[in-house]
Amino acid sequence: MSVMALILLMAVAGCSKEEESPTATAVPASSDGGSQVASGVSAIAAERGLTEADIEAAVKTFVPSGTHDEYILFASGGHSGQMLVIGMPSMRLLKVVGVYTPEPWQGWAVGDASETSHILDGGDLQDGTELTWGDTHHPALSETAGDYDGEWAFINEKANGRVAVIDLRDFETKQIIKNPLSMSNHGATMVTPDTKWVIEGGQFPAPLDGSYASIDEYEEKWRGVLTMWKFDRSTGRINYDESFAVETPPYWQDLCDAGKLVSAGMIFCGSFNSEMATGGIEDGNPPLEAGISQADMDYLHIFDIDKMTAAVAAGKTDMINGFPVISLETAAAEGILHFAPEPKSPHGADVTPDGEFVVVSGKLDPHVTVYSVPKIKEAIAAGATERDPFGVGILDFDTVVEVQVEVGLGPLHTQFDDQGYAYTSLFLDSAVARWTLGGSFSDLHSEPDWELIHKTPVHYNIGHLVTTEGDTVSPDGKYLVAMNKWSIDRFNVVGPLLPQNFQLLDISESGTTMPVIYDSPIGIGEPHYAQIIKADKLNPWEVYPEVGWNPETQSLDPRAVAPGEEGVTRDGNNVTVKSTLIRSHFTPERVNVKVGDRVTWHMTNLETAFDATHGFALPGQNINLSLEPGEHQTIEFEVTDEGVFTFYCTEFCSALHLEMAGFFMVAPN
Amino acid sequence: MSVMALILLMAVAGCSKEEESPTATAVPASSDGGSQVASGVSAIAAERGLTEADIEAAVKTFVPSGTHDEYILFASGGHSGQMLVIGMPSMRLLKVVGVYTPEPWQGWAVGDASETSHILDGGDLQDGTELTWGDTHHPALSETAGDYDGEWAFINEKANGRVAVIDLRDFETKQIIKNPLSMSNHGATMVTPDTKWVIEGGQFPAPLDGSYASIDEYEEKWRGVLTMWKFDRSTGRINYDESFAVETPPYWQDLCDAGKLVSAGMIFCGSFNSEMATGGIEDGNPPLEAGISQADMDYLHIFDIDKMTAAVAAGKTDMINGFPVISLETAAAEGILHFAPEPKSPHGADVTPDGEFVVVSGKLDPHVTVYSVPKIKEAIAAGATERDPFGVGILDFDTVVEVQVEVGLGPLHTQFDDQGYAYTSLFLDSAVARWTLGGSFSDLHSEPDWELIHKTPVHYNIGHLVTTEGDTVSPDGKYLVAMNKWSIDRFNVVGPLLPQNFQLLDISESGTTMPVIYDSPIGIGEPHYAQIIKADKLNPWEVYPEVGWNPETQSLDPRAVAPGEEGVTRDGNNVTVKSTLIRSHFTPERVNVKVGDRVTWHMTNLETAFDATHGFALPGQNINLSLEPGEHQTIEFEVTDEGVFTFYCTEFCSALHLEMAGFFMVAPN
Repeated sequence: MSVMALILLMAVAGCSKEEESPTATAVPASSDGGSQVASGVSAIAAERGLTEADIEAAVKTFVPSGTHDEYILFASGGHSGQMLVIGMPSMRLLKVVGVYTPEPWQGWAVGDASETSHILDGGDLQDGTELTWGDTHHPALSETAGDYDGEWAFINEKANGRVAVIDLRDFETKQIIKNPLSMSNHGATMVTPDTKWVIEGGQFPAPLDGSYASIDEYEEKWRGVLTMWKFDRSTGRINYDESFAVETPPYWQDLCDAGKLVSAGMIFCGSFNSEMATGGIEDGNPPLEAGISQADMDYLHIFDIDKMTAAVAAGKTDMINGFPVISLETAAAEGILHFAPEPKSPHGADVTPDGEFVVVSGKLDPHVTVYSVPKIKEAIAAGATERDPFGVGILDFDTVVEVQVEVGLGPLHTQFDDQGYAYTSLFLDSAVARWTLGGSFSDLHSEPDWELIHKTPVHYNIGHLVTTEGDTVSPDGKYLVAMNKWSIDRFNVVGPLLPQNFQLLDISESGTTMPVIYDSPIGIGEPHYAQIIKADKLNPWEVYPEVGWNPETQSLDPRAVAPGEEGVTRDGNNVTVKSTLIRSHFTPERVNVKVGDRVTWHMTNLETAFDATHGFALPGQNINLSLEPGEHQTIEFEVTDEGVFTFYCTEFCSALHLEMAGFFMVAPN
Repeated sequence: MSVMALILLMAVAGCSKEEESPTATAVPASSDGGSQVASGVSAIAAERGLTEADIEAAVKTFVPSGTHDEYILFASGGHSGQMLVIGMPSMRLLKVVGVYTPEPWQGWAVGDASETSHILDGGDLQDGTELTWGDTHHPALSETAGDYDGEWAFINEKANGRVAVIDLRDFETKQIIKNPLSMSNHGATMVTPDTKWVIEGGQFPAPLDGSYASIDEYEEKWRGVLTMWKFDRSTGRINYDESFAVETPPYWQDLCDAGKLVSAGMIFCGSFNSEMATGGIEDGNPPLEAGISQADMDYLHIFDIDKMTAAVAAGKTDMINGFPVISLETAAAEGILHFAPEPKSPHGADVTPDGEFVVVSGKLDPHVTVYSVPKIKEAIAAGATERDPFGVGILDFDTVVEVQVEVGLGPLHTQFDDQGYAYTSLFLDSAVARWTLGGSFSDLHSEPDWELIHKTPVHYNIGHLVTTEGDTVSPDGKYLVAMNKWSIDRFNVVGPLLPQNFQLLDISESGTTMPVIYDSPIGIGEPHYAQIIKADKLNPWEVYPEVGWNPETQSLDPRAVAPGEEGVTRDGNNVTVKSTLIRSHFTPERVNVKVGDRVTWHMTNLETAFDATHGFALPGQNINLSLEPGEHQTIEFEVTDEGVFTFYCTEFCSALHLEMAGFFMVAPN
């Protein structure tokens, strides 16, 4: 074969899809088929010391080559700043999506030259301080009528108060917004059932204008905030100008959940530190964790969205840092915010699929407390008889609570299934509790309502849990993932910093059968919250819709370079490079510039084949791009150093990938 | 239970190790046991459409909760800039080790305030340009007598010419060095069998002093370089002052391998572009990938380490950018460098476990070419009869080649097992070839020597492959991982940028049995090369040896803070904070400073329990630290903005983790 023929072969090699191996017959369920299976399997299992339960777990979770996972789990990456995408039941990590931390494989926001860097800059502090990490906690998939629709994901950043928008057509971050009022959030992001609003609940209070106030002025000047971000599906962006916030007392607001169906239009947020403790262990004060845990009750925050928007429409807002804020006084007076007592430092509030109940678990109380939404509505209509020090109406606990269920030590978070069960994580017990719901769920299970049915031990110290579509109006009830914070001895030691442990539980059977079937180490970040969507609800692009596509605008880029348009032009010190990329060369291959030039470099990946991504690394300039099939990118930078630099493709694209390079030659000025 | 009792319980909750579930009996291999297994398993398999081969694969790869993986795979993270640590056979990602890219979960090099940032700064460009990403290609585990010893890992960065040292006691990067002569490497990092030298082979040539030279001066002024970094186990650092480089012609050097046993003291590097093509497709020149692929032969570079060090000792070096370089003229004259012709743009050179052969595969030739080291030595002793344009002696091809074996299309990389087989990746065939070795390996297999035995298809387009300890003097021969560059339809689509696909092959049986048993998506970076070590060879720390440990120096930090020493002191504008961390509070909890202060903050994690890591996030300052049990860190930064900021623990440490916080209060100046 001639070299050129080989080159041609190689240029398309990447596209060649291997033929499937001859169709294998699935194992029949008959006992005959069964014993055939058993002989080879038993020998392997015996050699590897596997139990029968292990084999069943293996067979439940194995996803053969060429078949796909049934569910996709979107998990926060914790203080990695990213979002994790994991296939289920195999628990394989399909992608780490770059959000608040630059990630060069994806070409995400590395350095200052690229357009993705400018998206990350959207989250810079008001004084221009660049932030290059984040602490993501709660991803939220977009919903239509309370069910995941697979179109968008949102995710918060707790350390500096930011929210991000991710487009699930290409799994890329499109927008990052810095909260103008707060450096902190935790009840974020959650969405309303139609994704009209992205909720950013706060956590640590501070003066909302960002000014200094001493710790002695805590009660007087420090405040919490709930921010309502208006999401516009047509632009795929949060509309800053139609968004607003609600001032809250300086309790530490925690997780929130939007109401649905009967509770649509309501938002529920747990909170702790109604004590308004401010620590000072060094001065003999109780340490924060003790000071915060003294009171028997904290306050479930109950917000009314219609009343909020009415107040905004009526101009009943103050402008703080240029952003409209409904004052605490207005919120209390207009009934925008009510409190219901909730036991002992709860973590969050979880609305049942029918919208009728809100489940709260206080980690210092072995019960979950179930609130009735109709009762809350009645109590609000009847008027609060008590008020907190900031004037917010407090509903009577006994009037609004439906029931309390004892589940175990350290209950943190609850999700749901399709069999009328709720599942609560127990941090101190290191277990998952299954318990029965009442009300409209009563007919779905055979056990008595509001009763603990079973606990499955997990390893170790579970924080959140997540069930398949378990926080929507129609949970699937197939799997549960225990998001365990400690892994200790579960995995090979990889130094003193250990991975977390996502344990997969099969919850498809009723009653006391709820086995752990897989342990997955999470060796990148510490996920907090997650959501699981049926994979077939996602409809991502395999390649960009047209060659020359700009992922930032999700439209054809007018600067896209067509074959034949490539070249280098100069206007004074401004050099414009127009490049195309295709297996396996850059055009042009030689770019001559001088020290002091400002370079604008347009790059279009001409590929239309699935998986035909090219990378672009430019030594000396801290630049790496990922140009997926059809993608266009424009970068801009100043040239400061002479020398010759070989730019090259960083994504192995063909047998001649190593030859996909070019020369960036910088002459002295 | 009182609140304080609960708090005490929670403070230690993380340490409580769950009791193991009652010991389950492993499945017996008998047919009775077998059929018991089969009934439940068959039903699940039938429901999920699994074949018998699928079930066997599942049972071969499943690692039950609480048991550990047998092998650890260290893979480059490609242009993620990181190193991946994966358990085998489960193929679970245990950790992404931060190397060239900041990674906040590990507290790795985020922002400018921390000591880890200063380690990353070690790789900055000479003019101070900060690099915040890298393109890692080849991790190298440290070796003793040619076997992995589990102590250190090294990894290169191709885009800017850097090497890194990772300590496998804590899996953290300790040193990053910028090559003073080159912005590029590829045959890096490889180690000599005693890890005395870390080899950094080059790739793209350029003037070694970093100056500009036009493309017309390519042959005259552009040069390649091989850098020999001296590694000092006692300090755990590369000793820059005992290191040196060897100038090479402006061919594109590629992968290298160090000789072992009979070939100890030799280094073999593949190369391509002996044509010295420089592209220019835009001017009607052949594109680089065609220009580079014209010649029938490129040059296997054969280096002699003893002759190098003798030349260095004799002062036969030139100083370039302050670094000693053996000139090409000296290298040729002293016999430091010889060439052997090698067919058609090979990727690398792989030395057999006995050190006797070097296997080269040129991706444009369907053969692997096997060189005999004794024949090479004889040919060198006899003296080269031909010389390349730069005066380097060329050995006669037929004199030094042992055999050529036809294996298939696009052969790239070869590793070995314990049965006398070699395994070669075939990019164009998308397959792994198994073929027999001769010489001392002949008795290990029953087939004829030097013969293709089998090909297993992989999905898709394999680059490198790696076998268990397959590039050492004693390969294990149990597993092979095909590092496939494209995944196309193998996994759920996650947007146009797809994960790579690591496919696990069971190579424990001889002959034609070599099944794929697992597909693992790699959704973070694009790994190139990898090494697999038996897990029990690693001896990582579970916690740091003493409280107050500094991971940078791997010794007790004199600045460590003991309980009772905490506090805030001021000297002019310099504020010193001494903090301790323990579940679940910071001491002190209140830190008052002023705008314009320079803060030095010492932080000691007092924990000694396995997995008791605390994080430290400081809003507004782009700081996140990971303080593992016993770890001490000191950070320094300027305070520029007034306001109140709540620092908090980012690693979920107890049921009262959310309360582990404190106030950083910045008054106006």
